[in-house]
Amino acid sequence: MDDRNKKTGRIQSAPENFLDADLAHEITTKGLNPERRSFMLKSFLAASAAIASGSAFAGKAKSAGDPNILNLPEHSTTLGKPVTANPYGVPSKYETNLLRRESPGLTRVSAASVSFAPLQGLFGIITPSGLHFERHHQGWHDIDPSKHRFMINGLVKNPKVYTMDDLMRLPSVSRMHFIECGANSAMEWGNNAVPTVQYTHGMLSCSEFTGVPLSVLLDDCGYDKKKGKFVLAEGSDGSGMTRTVPIDQALDDVIVAWAMNGEMLRPENGYPLRLVVPGVQGVSWVKWLRRIEVGDKPYATKDEAVHYIDLMPDGQYRQYTSIQECKSVITSPSAGQVLLDKGFYNITGLAWSGRGKIKRVDVSVDGGKNWKKARLESPDLPKCLRRFNFDWVWDGSPAILQSRAIDETGYVQPKINELREVRGTRSIYHNNAIQSWKLAASGELSNVQTY
Amino acid sequence: MDDRNKKTGRIQSAPENFLDADLAHEITTKGLNPERRSFMLKSFLAASAAIASGSAFAGKAKSAGDPNILNLPEHSTTLGKPVTANPYGVPSKYETNLLRRESPGLTRVSAASVSFAPLQGLFGIITPSGLHFERHHQGWHDIDPSKHRFMINGLVKNPKVYTMDDLMRLPSVSRMHFIECGANSAMEWGNNAVPTVQYTHGMLSCSEFTGVPLSVLLDDCGYDKKKGKFVLAEGSDGSGMTRTVPIDQALDDVIVAWAMNGEMLRPENGYPLRLVVPGVQGVSWVKWLRRIEVGDKPYATKDEAVHYIDLMPDGQYRQYTSIQECKSVITSPSAGQVLLDKGFYNITGLAWSGRGKIKRVDVSVDGGKNWKKARLESPDLPKCLRRFNFDWVWDGSPAILQSRAIDETGYVQPKINELREVRGTRSIYHNNAIQSWKLAASGELSNVQTY
Repeated sequence: MDDRNKKTGRIQSAPENFLDADLAHEITTKGLNPERRSFMLKSFLAASAAIASGSAFAGKAKSAGDPNILNLPEHSTTLGKPVTANPYGVPSKYETNLLRRESPGLTRVSAASVSFAPLQGLFGIITPSGLHFERHHQGWHDIDPSKHRFMINGLVKNPKVYTMDDLMRLPSVSRMHFIECGANSAMEWGNNAVPTVQYTHGMLSCSEFTGVPLSVLLDDCGYDKKKGKFVLAEGSDGSGMTRTVPIDQALDDVIVAWAMNGEMLRPENGYPLRLVVPGVQGVSWVKWLRRIEVGDKPYATKDEAVHYIDLMPDGQYRQYTSIQECKSVITSPSAGQVLLDKGFYNITGLAWSGRGKIKRVDVSVDGGKNWKKARLESPDLPKCLRRFNFDWVWDGSPAILQSRAIDETGYVQPKINELREVRGTRSIYHNNAIQSWKLAASGELSNVQTY
Repeated sequence: MDDRNKKTGRIQSAPENFLDADLAHEITTKGLNPERRSFMLKSFLAASAAIASGSAFAGKAKSAGDPNILNLPEHSTTLGKPVTANPYGVPSKYETNLLRRESPGLTRVSAASVSFAPLQGLFGIITPSGLHFERHHQGWHDIDPSKHRFMINGLVKNPKVYTMDDLMRLPSVSRMHFIECGANSAMEWGNNAVPTVQYTHGMLSCSEFTGVPLSVLLDDCGYDKKKGKFVLAEGSDGSGMTRTVPIDQALDDVIVAWAMNGEMLRPENGYPLRLVVPGVQGVSWVKWLRRIEVGDKPYATKDEAVHYIDLMPDGQYRQYTSIQECKSVITSPSAGQVLLDKGFYNITGLAWSGRGKIKRVDVSVDGGKNWKKARLESPDLPKCLRRFNFDWVWDGSPAILQSRAIDETGYVQPKINELREVRGTRSIYHNNAIQSWKLAASGELSNVQTY
């Protein structure tokens, strides 16, 4: 796995020398008192271009000659790049290792596959759109929005075809929600072979979506309030992606969305139109959305009759289990990372629930024997990621790090053995178990399962 | 202005033909009843590759030959691009006109200039990091984070130099805040020549920031609680950017931040470290942050003694006026856009206050004679943008569109003439007046000032 090198986990990168050691010692132990600063500044001014600020801190002392002559780094002494050097900006060249990645061998072809978001290197709750996980069933296209059409038909008085311009004139809402593939953490049902949090939990992202509530469109078309019990959502890619959504859910908080994180959807995420079904597994968030049909019964499409069903121990399948139950994971420190020394660490991670808000997150460093409350960051939104942080001083002993989320319904995230008692070990979907990371005395972290 | 063409304002783009007109009419007026759909599907199957879905909606009828033979668009019949085709994703090729832009002639050199965020084409509150506004004083650099150092000195017991790794181990917080340049809307003091909302209000962005509270670092260094009244923040670019922050503010919600919208800061926004000073004008959010000094009085640096001061009508200057007062603007429809027909429109915009949360936003379509409450989107956070939406049916008459925000302190966004009574017309900074967009009967929108 190419993302397991030392650069990926920030915790791992060793400090490099920058300041001359003696000068750094002097600065850190004595501070830059006015006299000293004045002397340094004079030395510096004599040797180099003037800087407007009184501090000559960020320099590197020359080892030869006068040790007080500072050479400031290039970025402090030169004219930088102009505004709109990148009219659409990109990350730093030092961040090129943080990418979404495909799991080699997981699927036969990359057009019907998954790429995982690099949770170990992300912060807060907003997933950068460039790193949003991908799950395609027949690849992705960049569709011309001026040619795209969206139809509502079935049990409606006035079936309609909308252009993008038609839709974008309608009353819109903006809401932050997580999206998780139903198969996230799938490999954890049977074993714990998956090496990093990117691959165990990386089919998870969170964005601010903007669009028109589906309820507005269903009203606009005069849906049949007596007979209409379900809607079918259909994508326009070649996979024939179709999913059933119960009408109560469709009328509640479902959005026909064109925007994600402030701009139009990215092509990989359904540009120019996708369904947002808060709390429900990603497959129902139909991308490249072209049609909603109102019907009187579930449609039992291939992606809800053959795929996205839960195999139970008795050989039966559970169908239409689409709500993502309460779950959490520590994203850092996590498997594949290495703690380079003892001392203070900020344990951080994400919690979410398809049923509503997160009420509490607990963290354990001893494999679940003892739990302490983590700090929850804002905002506090339903069906949205919640970032948690936890203060921890590592004494160098082996440890097992876990997080456990509790949502506003009172539901507590289960242990993997509790889930297996009900579901067996051969499921693919809907694994929301507590995740364990084993920390060795060497500082190395790995994926383990504890019971 | 090259962004005033028909592509920028989504409201402007005329629908293009896609479905054969007769077929579209049939679909929209009659719906696709099962028999009809079955017939269409059979025709389609006979002529083209099978699709798994029962709908052949998204096609275009051939004008020659059998009008019922549908050709689906290429994206519905071909294998798309694989996952990680872009390991770090980019916007659609159809969105290349939505860019941050420099205002020609506003400044002498582009390295000490401004680029504006294209508010007219943004949604929700999160600014895509690639479109975050820029304001540099000596250009931007991409600094190697492994070599970057951050120092705290001055009135502290233990001055310290931190590496990025040191900082990122500390307790972190994630919070959403707006950042607005103090000079945003500067051109509106004297006239109304600025043609679009990108140039009137585009020095405004909003992101989720992650970092360590400055209070944690000041405690870590043992700042002098008696004598320490102010801190100085210093950037490491060549401009010698230095700003004073009162200690109470520094200890309240100021963050030494490394992340923005889930990933490391972009180079143009201070990578790898910037100060986040919620509610305060952008210049104090020092980029490429290298030093905080604790002192006993304001530092009166060049950027708070010569620049970023408010010229009053009597020739005196106001200094240290750094909090961004309550403000709002309609981002669409807005100047430079054209409404192509009458009927329903969603009026949408942004509101914010450096004093806390937004309590209410009112919208007027008659130049401020009558006001109605707008809908506010979630989340409801202090010192953060708030998206508002307002239902409106345009009857084709001329109109003047305005928004007016009220924050949780009860402060009401002023009219431009109210501000001018106090501040005159020669200020540059801190213009938070109500913005007016004039809608002509032709559908064209322009920037006007009403009294």
